[in-house]
Amino acid sequence: MIDALHIEANANVALVKYWGKADEAANLPATGSVSISLDALKTTTIMKQGAGPNDEIWLNGESVGTGVDRIQSFIDRVRTMYVGIGPVHVISTNSFPTGAGLASSASGFAALAIGINRLCGIGLEPADVSRLARLGSGSAARSVYGGFVAISADGDGAAVPIDVDMTHWPLTVLIAVTDTAAKSVGSTQAMQRTADTSPYYAEWVQQHPADMIEAHRSIAEADFDGLATVSIRSCMKMHAAIMAARPPIIYWNPGTMAVVNAVEGWREAGRRVFYTIDAGPQVKVICHQDDVAVCNRELAQLPGVRNVIESGIGGEPRVHWSYSR
Amino acid sequence: MIDALHIEANANVALVKYWGKADEAANLPATGSVSISLDALKTTTIMKQGAGPNDEIWLNGESVGTGVDRIQSFIDRVRTMYVGIGPVHVISTNSFPTGAGLASSASGFAALAIGINRLCGIGLEPADVSRLARLGSGSAARSVYGGFVAISADGDGAAVPIDVDMTHWPLTVLIAVTDTAAKSVGSTQAMQRTADTSPYYAEWVQQHPADMIEAHRSIAEADFDGLATVSIRSCMKMHAAIMAARPPIIYWNPGTMAVVNAVEGWREAGRRVFYTIDAGPQVKVICHQDDVAVCNRELAQLPGVRNVIESGIGGEPRVHWSYSR
Repeated sequence: MIDALHIEANANVALVKYWGKADEAANLPATGSVSISLDALKTTTIMKQGAGPNDEIWLNGESVGTGVDRIQSFIDRVRTMYVGIGPVHVISTNSFPTGAGLASSASGFAALAIGINRLCGIGLEPADVSRLARLGSGSAARSVYGGFVAISADGDGAAVPIDVDMTHWPLTVLIAVTDTAAKSVGSTQAMQRTADTSPYYAEWVQQHPADMIEAHRSIAEADFDGLATVSIRSCMKMHAAIMAARPPIIYWNPGTMAVVNAVEGWREAGRRVFYTIDAGPQVKVICHQDDVAVCNRELAQLPGVRNVIESGIGGEPRVHWSYSR
Repeated sequence: MIDALHIEANANVALVKYWGKADEAANLPATGSVSISLDALKTTTIMKQGAGPNDEIWLNGESVGTGVDRIQSFIDRVRTMYVGIGPVHVISTNSFPTGAGLASSASGFAALAIGINRLCGIGLEPADVSRLARLGSGSAARSVYGGFVAISADGDGAAVPIDVDMTHWPLTVLIAVTDTAAKSVGSTQAMQRTADTSPYYAEWVQQHPADMIEAHRSIAEADFDGLATVSIRSCMKMHAAIMAARPPIIYWNPGTMAVVNAVEGWREAGRRVFYTIDAGPQVKVICHQDDVAVCNRELAQLPGVRNVIESGIGGEPRVHWSYSR
């Protein structure tokens, strides 16, 4: 039996957006998604067999209370699925703001799913680990792989890495952080409200598969402009569906708009760059390698941009070490 | 025959939004609308019988070239509808930025329709003047009246004043100007692109009548909160439909978001205030009388807000003088 291990997993950003659940209990997505892994946004998790009677969970240096916590709920759920999982200790740390729309749940639950599988000897294959991570967070299913990753809405709920020659995709993601506070409405609640009350939700789901096809085609053909167009479209359609909910949910702030307006201007000026926004006010600016330096410099000077995190495309999660008695 | 006259008409802001055309040639709206007149945003127009062979048109102190101009096109169209209209001189001045999403076409074409009807002795009744103004701009049909005004999507295309005791509605509109430049995409073109390419356009039109009913009920019952809720909902649904067009149209800038976020905070804090945004980056903040002073002070200090225009509810257009030889 493994006694302890150390895992690192990257967050990811969806270019074609997942928004809405087809099955609440199984956390199955109503829309597919295509993402890229971000090597600058990491969760580092150390897991150990527990000594006392209960789990112990530390997140970003603070002990997490039991009961209502998402991490605790996840572990309890895994315990109902696989017998013989004793108390565990989890020490998880994010390299970036938590709960602010920077996909900390993606890297966090990916690391946790990989860790508990190894630590407790469950013996799942990667696709099953992806499905397990999904129970914690829909986007975590993608973070068990690196590079470009997709989830199909009509598949088995596991993410699939997209096999592509990454030398054709020298992308850098500039993460414009416009607010480090936790977002106003959490994704799960916001998805529910969108599905229940937005007049645009049904169309959002129905017209989504065309964007999936377009993204897969663009990636296969190394068509930067095609990927940019479908990514912006998917982002705007998602936020439009969200803000039409009752009452409206508005994730954007002045800094968000400053970045969006700037990137639209850069695109008109011929720079190979586009943006995407998850549930939250931060903007991810995806740049072709040649345009990174100038975009980074100008992004940092925009009013409302607190800092810019420069990220390459991340690889697979890594188990740095594991220790067996 | 009248030789010259001087008209003043107010712009208006729609609380339930008109967006999309049911009939392009007749400029009939696909959605109804409910507006309030703004006494601080005025067009002053002087019209005279022309001396030379052609019309002469001056807008904001500059001579307008013939041919492509909207005002010239409108006059030419009126000439095809009613015989015997000779050359006219139009000198029109707005008290506020033109073409920036502050409804200058509403007050402008309302004044023009009223003026040409009088000057040329066409003899139209008010409802017909409203329909005539509509051919210049959909929102101009409402500016031929004061106070609360409605247009039904299934009516005859004329606006109708809403008969309401205005003492129950001590409203002030604070117009937060965040950019004085002309907007990036004109309303007519943006409506067309939304109707042609937005996946949400059909739902926007279909779910609109419920908002009209809710607005009429709120106004009749002097229900400020009800009017605020339906106004915000209609605004967000409209902008959502627009930004989901292909390519997306984004009218908002950092100042727009600063105002929206601030007003959302004020509402949570119990202030009787709401916002609406037309096609453009400006935000109209509608306040109950008791909350005007503090909102005005705080609005003016928001980053991205260039100036705040305070407006009461406007009355009917006025013909200040007319001169007959």
